[in-house]
Amino acid sequence: MRIILVGYGTVGRSLTDLLKIQINKLRRTHGFYPRVVAVVDRGGAAISSEGLDLETLHRVKVEKGSVSFYPGVGVAGISALDVIREIDAEVVVETTPTNIVNGEPGMTHIKEALISGKNVVTTNKGPLALALPALMDLAEYNNVLIRFSGTVGGGTPVIDFAKECLNGEEIVSIRGVLNGTTNFILTEMEEKHVAMKQALSRAKELGYTEEDPSMDIKGIDSACKLVILANWVMGLRKKLEDVEIEGIENLTLKNVEERKRRGELIRLIGEARDEELSVKPLPLPKHDPLCVKGTLNAVTFQTKFSGEKTIVGPGAGGVETASAVIRDLIRVKAALMKR
Amino acid sequence: MRIILVGYGTVGRSLTDLLKIQINKLRRTHGFYPRVVAVVDRGGAAISSEGLDLETLHRVKVEKGSVSFYPGVGVAGISALDVIREIDAEVVVETTPTNIVNGEPGMTHIKEALISGKNVVTTNKGPLALALPALMDLAEYNNVLIRFSGTVGGGTPVIDFAKECLNGEEIVSIRGVLNGTTNFILTEMEEKHVAMKQALSRAKELGYTEEDPSMDIKGIDSACKLVILANWVMGLRKKLEDVEIEGIENLTLKNVEERKRRGELIRLIGEARDEELSVKPLPLPKHDPLCVKGTLNAVTFQTKFSGEKTIVGPGAGGVETASAVIRDLIRVKAALMKR
Repeated sequence: MRIILVGYGTVGRSLTDLLKIQINKLRRTHGFYPRVVAVVDRGGAAISSEGLDLETLHRVKVEKGSVSFYPGVGVAGISALDVIREIDAEVVVETTPTNIVNGEPGMTHIKEALISGKNVVTTNKGPLALALPALMDLAEYNNVLIRFSGTVGGGTPVIDFAKECLNGEEIVSIRGVLNGTTNFILTEMEEKHVAMKQALSRAKELGYTEEDPSMDIKGIDSACKLVILANWVMGLRKKLEDVEIEGIENLTLKNVEERKRRGELIRLIGEARDEELSVKPLPLPKHDPLCVKGTLNAVTFQTKFSGEKTIVGPGAGGVETASAVIRDLIRVKAALMKR
Repeated sequence: MRIILVGYGTVGRSLTDLLKIQINKLRRTHGFYPRVVAVVDRGGAAISSEGLDLETLHRVKVEKGSVSFYPGVGVAGISALDVIREIDAEVVVETTPTNIVNGEPGMTHIKEALISGKNVVTTNKGPLALALPALMDLAEYNNVLIRFSGTVGGGTPVIDFAKECLNGEEIVSIRGVLNGTTNFILTEMEEKHVAMKQALSRAKELGYTEEDPSMDIKGIDSACKLVILANWVMGLRKKLEDVEIEGIENLTLKNVEERKRRGELIRLIGEARDEELSVKPLPLPKHDPLCVKGTLNAVTFQTKFSGEKTIVGPGAGGVETASAVIRDLIRVKAALMKR
């Protein structure tokens, strides 16, 4: 399977590393022969129809800053859009950074890939939070797939779980801790009795959040994930603007400690129920499976007949997200085989 | 899809109820048209190639004690084996009670179904714990499927999760709370400060355990589930006798409370690691996602690259287990479509 990789940051590099390590197992277990025929970053691209050497790719990126320095097949200045249009491949893996204003440049990359008949696997929340229903329609019209397991729960297969493991059931509601950074902050506050400011500094120190943490703190990252999850799993057609959002910015240590004395923990909960989507801090009984600690994510699916099922796991990280991309690639491969 | 249902106890009746309620949705969403052509219980069978009426079936069973009183098509005294052999169907759903000595009568039912070219969906742990590898071989040889989602985690798709959602990963170890009754007892002890005897009485009162609770308390039920899970997910060929088993029968309230003071909770943990299988009470940090309360089940899969993922949910119950049977039936249907 020929792959064009757009964006070569943490997730992209983790992906090529993981493909390198797992290649034999993927061939043996899934008959999956990935061939990376192009990688694009801001400096240009490396392109080879025979497949790029993943070790060289990583080395060139680290040493010279752009894959366009790849010996022999590097092309400086070429745009992702040109590569997506002109290079033959079965799949475009889109891993550029999330932009929730207009989804760019990921939005254009994904649309162009779908229009040119290429399947898409993406870890980019922006385009999906803004326009998942339209992108699904576009994929269907062009008879290709769009997959995005890595956008929710990172390495924890939240989306796959709901889609693959709850067949024949009806999902009545979704409630989840969808952002590891805010959960880390809340855990620090409740366990170390520190104010939010201090907990936030600690999160920055540990690399759990960006210099500007507002996407996390204000609940926007959680809302993006909630939109993606609810649309895909419950068949809704919601956008980011439809979510009622309240972040954790106004929570005080006093709020947290008062709840704790009553046996409750405050968690930033994204919830989809009766077609209404919301993100807000909620007190939960401390034994609720959603009361996970640190940077973990957790999502509870309430089903009509067989109760609540919760999935818990690491919510972010390069390797974790790359493992989600590989799961998606295996699914795309299985779908291609059926044709 | 024509279904022979063997055993018409709690799970069987929940299954026909759930099929009745969900029939339109199953048709619409999965193109799944189930037709129950025979039901067998200890008194005989009801057989109709056109499909039995599920409401009549339930009513006859409750009012007269056996489906053999089904008007017109009831057959008193006929054996399950004869029905499995002689009635045309795509699937046999085996729901007779678990027997861990020799797996009977389920073992013979399942073998006969596979040999006669029928797919099998079962909720019976006995045959699988004693001989899963051999039954898998037999299914493969006869080009049919055997599925058993309901045997582990009840309504919580533990088995499906590992098989369907962790593609491309390697599962390094499995650790889980696999028995709801013992977990209820441990929770009662740690929260209500009562001795095991008292907690056990409460479990009996609430209908969480049989009159003879030794299968639960001695860890045997957990061991059966561990064998099934580990064989299927990790590709092992273990039997019940290969599991090192220690139950909770010797735990005292003092043990539980001492651990609690150190921030730990004792859970009866089934673990598969390095091809070694064990069931024993273990102290876990109280924030471990496996420290679930009450009758919940929880299983953590440690993966090679993307960390630990835990799934939590109700472990037992008629409707819950029936929902697992329906998931399996949908998978069998999908597999039949591919042929």
